[in-house]
Amino acid sequence: MVDEHPPTALDLPMVDPLPEATQKYFDICVEKLGMVPNVLRAYAFDIDKLDAFTAMYNNLMLAPSGLSKLEREMIAVVVSAINRCFYCLVAHGAAVRALSGDPKLGEMLVMNYRVAPLDPRQRAMLDFAARITESSAAVSEADRQALRDAGFSDRDIWDIANVAGFFNMTNRVASATAMRPNDDYHAQAR
Amino acid sequence: MVDEHPPTALDLPMVDPLPEATQKYFDICVEKLGMVPNVLRAYAFDIDKLDAFTAMYNNLMLAPSGLSKLEREMIAVVVSAINRCFYCLVAHGAAVRALSGDPKLGEMLVMNYRVAPLDPRQRAMLDFAARITESSAAVSEADRQALRDAGFSDRDIWDIANVAGFFNMTNRVASATAMRPNDDYHAQAR
Amino acid sequence: MVDEHPPTALDLPMVDPLPEATQKYFDICVEKLGMVPNVLRAYAFDIDKLDAFTAMYNNLMLAPSGLSKLEREMIAVVVSAINRCFYCLVAHGAAVRALSGDPKLGEMLVMNYRVAPLDPRQRAMLDFAARITESSAAVSEADRQALRDAGFSDRDIWDIANVAGFFNMTNRVASATAMRPNDDYHAQAR
Amino acid sequence: MVDEHPPTALDLPMVDPLPEATQKYFDICVEKLGMVPNVLRAYAFDIDKLDAFTAMYNNLMLAPSGLSKLEREMIAVVVSAINRCFYCLVAHGAAVRALSGDPKLGEMLVMNYRVAPLDPRQRAMLDFAARITESSAAVSEADRQALRDAGFSDRDIWDIANVAGFFNMTNRVASATAMRPNDDYHAQAR
Amino acid sequence: MVDEHPPTALDLPMVDPLPEATQKYFDICVEKLGMVPNVLRAYAFDIDKLDAFTAMYNNLMLAPSGLSKLEREMIAVVVSAINRCFYCLVAHGAAVRALSGDPKLGEMLVMNYRVAPLDPRQRAMLDFAARITESSAAVSEADRQALRDAGFSDRDIWDIANVAGFFNMTNRVASATAMRPNDDYHAQAR
Amino acid sequence: MVDEHPPTALDLPMVDPLPEATQKYFDICVEKLGMVPNVLRAYAFDIDKLDAFTAMYNNLMLAPSGLSKLEREMIAVVVSAINRCFYCLVAHGAAVRALSGDPKLGEMLVMNYRVAPLDPRQRAMLDFAARITESSAAVSEADRQALRDAGFSDRDIWDIANVAGFFNMTNRVASATAMRPNDDYHAQAR
Repeated sequence: MVDEHPPTALDLPMVDPLPEATQKYFDICVEKLGMVPNVLRAYAFDIDKLDAFTAMYNNLMLAPSGLSKLEREMIAVVVSAINRCFYCLVAHGAAVRALSGDPKLGEMLVMNYRVAPLDPRQRAMLDFAARITESSAAVSEADRQALRDAGFSDRDIWDIANVAGFFNMTNRVASATAMRPNDDYHAQAR
Repeated sequence: MVDEHPPTALDLPMVDPLPEATQKYFDICVEKLGMVPNVLRAYAFDIDKLDAFTAMYNNLMLAPSGLSKLEREMIAVVVSAINRCFYCLVAHGAAVRALSGDPKLGEMLVMNYRVAPLDPRQRAMLDFAARITESSAAVSEADRQALRDAGFSDRDIWDIANVAGFFNMTNRVASATAMRPNDDYHAQAR
Repeated sequence: MVDEHPPTALDLPMVDPLPEATQKYFDICVEKLGMVPNVLRAYAFDIDKLDAFTAMYNNLMLAPSGLSKLEREMIAVVVSAINRCFYCLVAHGAAVRALSGDPKLGEMLVMNYRVAPLDPRQRAMLDFAARITESSAAVSEADRQALRDAGFSDRDIWDIANVAGFFNMTNRVASATAMRPNDDYHAQAR
Repeated sequence: MVDEHPPTALDLPMVDPLPEATQKYFDICVEKLGMVPNVLRAYAFDIDKLDAFTAMYNNLMLAPSGLSKLEREMIAVVVSAINRCFYCLVAHGAAVRALSGDPKLGEMLVMNYRVAPLDPRQRAMLDFAARITESSAAVSEADRQALRDAGFSDRDIWDIANVAGFFNMTNRVASATAMRPNDDYHAQAR
Repeated sequence: MVDEHPPTALDLPMVDPLPEATQKYFDICVEKLGMVPNVLRAYAFDIDKLDAFTAMYNNLMLAPSGLSKLEREMIAVVVSAINRCFYCLVAHGAAVRALSGDPKLGEMLVMNYRVAPLDPRQRAMLDFAARITESSAAVSEADRQALRDAGFSDRDIWDIANVAGFFNMTNRVASATAMRPNDDYHAQAR
Repeated sequence: MVDEHPPTALDLPMVDPLPEATQKYFDICVEKLGMVPNVLRAYAFDIDKLDAFTAMYNNLMLAPSGLSKLEREMIAVVVSAINRCFYCLVAHGAAVRALSGDPKLGEMLVMNYRVAPLDPRQRAMLDFAARITESSAAVSEADRQALRDAGFSDRDIWDIANVAGFFNMTNRVASATAMRPNDDYHAQAR
């Protein structure tokens, strides 16, 4: 169901009518997710911006990677928890619950990822994501080596850094514009 | 001149040979900038990632906007100064110097943007960029209204938030991977 | 159902058998809540400590006050979110969902209370709770006056300060001992 | 001598007359300490609250424990120094001076406990108290193990966490209400 | 009495014998203060450094100024409290107690200057000293104007900034070298 | 060339005419540096203050030391970068560029010293300078030992602490007074 409220506090109405390709993409969202995520509605005032965003998002979160889709969502939630981004915590917290089948894991990552009983690989991954979120200027070779020691390849390190970086972007865009998550997320996969 | 050193601390060689379109894009960079910026070389191990990055970068920094290109570069520098990202400060500090014709302005934004003698509009823009970089979770309607009061439209606010957000992403990617700027930037537009 | 796992990372078994009054209290918990909250099991290695804790807890959270029970739970969640206390966020997040009948409100307070659409009185209350959690040394008469201006009596201010103070205590006890919440909370009142 | 000024900035007069048991308790304070500590006068607008506070206080600070009374006062001062709570620093600084017979130790703990020449056990104890005061969400099993390695039992760890937690509560209550310490403390045990 | 312990953790013995002028200066210290402050003994491994330090110190703290000597000592204590410098808090806390005749004022400034009942002029002075200690990069004309509005001349503002700046230097030198204060300070002017 | 603008935001004109010795000193500055640094013009409203400042400055930065002049300038820049002091970054950034003949080193220290390819001795020196700038109260013997292990004598440690301390003073004086650097620095040694 397409949400009727504006997706942010900014007065930026969607292009109307949407280009055919965009409308089709939104229709697929409704079919697969039961909604058009508000972040897409927010960008849809400018189709070039929407396309650039979705291209980067889909590449980072869905393309082949040494990180599973769940792991990428876990990074999303840990970064968003540090930045206290309501939109991203709701949307990606739901994704962690759904992909893991473990609602408690989703809550742990939202509340304090350090309490989650993770294997050393995933803990190292989330520690790195937290570190570059909180103090990227202090990252050194030792931090990268810790990831290699935990079993990650240099390509994986790139992906961790880019996923964590991406949510540092979207957290700020969402908070800066008061983006609100679709209501449907809240009850998903509890 | 294409720099011969690897652009980051990760072992991720560029696709070789580059696809024709990419090679052409790099050739244009050399022609226009005198170099291929290392950030592009860094992403070129995976052309889909490179394309997603350049599409978003070019849309944000070069597409029509209520913010001038210089203003977008000013945001880039202020965000990167807070995050102390060497790569982005060097590259975008040079851009501010070049676009403004005012090397001192470039240095002020690198060192402490609050000392720069800006008009109220640009000061409000940079204060907002700094605020969402440092404490996005505390942004409220009053912050957005301050931008409107300084003459920005809602579309401009979107652009400020997205440019500032973008460099919060790239700062972290660059620092996480020890990305190093091309040497040519240092002496530009002094 | 009494949880079979130890409630904390410390090896401090409950008094066995429990004194009759304590057993009765725990039985009432099971009857009313469907569980004995792990915080009570954690303190039950020393009945004097358990009794001191429950006396203070029940006075603060359940005794007559100008603050509703929901409002006291809201303070608990906001303080615990700042301190990122998993135990308290789970237990009191569930209480906010249950008492308010508004699961989204519970999530907002867990994730970033500033996004919640609160009336000015409750917002002032939570801002004060946040302020004394983050920088109590800087509190001044102006902060107290802001509460009075929002309609709170001096007695209410005492209660806000004491509830917020209390969770600053329990957050630290819970995190210091790796206290884990009963599993039953997670699905409650979603 | 009972202090004639109100104990806090809130207008919350003591119950008058005090219940017999409370009056007796206050008389004992005067007899033993030469004063009724203002914190007790502050709570005495509601005898249930006063009783809950004194029960917890007396259990934590005076009941048998693997920590000496001085050690519990040392924790009180270190926590209060981090939170810069004037009331608690004055009252418990005096207690450290009196119990230790070492006025300089009292000042060191007020000013910067890291300069005090402590044995490794007490240093570990205070480091843990400082850690849960400043960043409880990051406490891990390694922190608890450091205490065990320094000779503390799990019961002792509970006590350290609870004493440190308690002063994180009282610091906030005192600062939030502008509680002022009795003048008599200042010159004690210098 | 000249203290027999080394004044810092560094092995830097005093010039021996001291030059006549230095010895005379130290003799005057003993006569007037009852001791040679350890900071002077610390610098006396190099008489040029000692002379440069005392010249600046005496100019800042003793030369004619729109700030009274007490006010300069108050700044010293507030800055040192923020930096938690044991040496400077002990030495200058004693000076505040002695010059003000108000031991409680000395303690308030050591513990949390915001609780001290100061007139608006002195409060503005200490707020500025605190601000440049904690976040000098954010100081703006509004901060200077607040001092002017409180009755300070531009010359006074210079003095406040320089006294506050000076203790930001000495706090770091003292803490970096584990400088310890003479024992005589502790009991002075209580 | 003597700059014609006032050196700070304070209305504190230079003594006029300058005493002969001061005029001579300024003439030497013009001869050697091509300018009178604005910091000297700022202090010249009071010759005693100017003399105390220059005596300490010259002793710290120019007198014989185990630290080279370049190393002392490197400390100046790293401290000033943490404090984001525009005046000191411009003036001492230029000095690092000039003394090292390596403009890129100057920029690295201004932007994020951790990215500079330093030998372990200089890295240890700068880490210590950064540490006492950011958290001097936490310095311990281990920090001093790390410097000794890197090859520094106790006398060198004194010098590192004092140079770092000094710029923590001047950074605050410069920012508090809006001191502006001479324009000539910007283009020097690029």
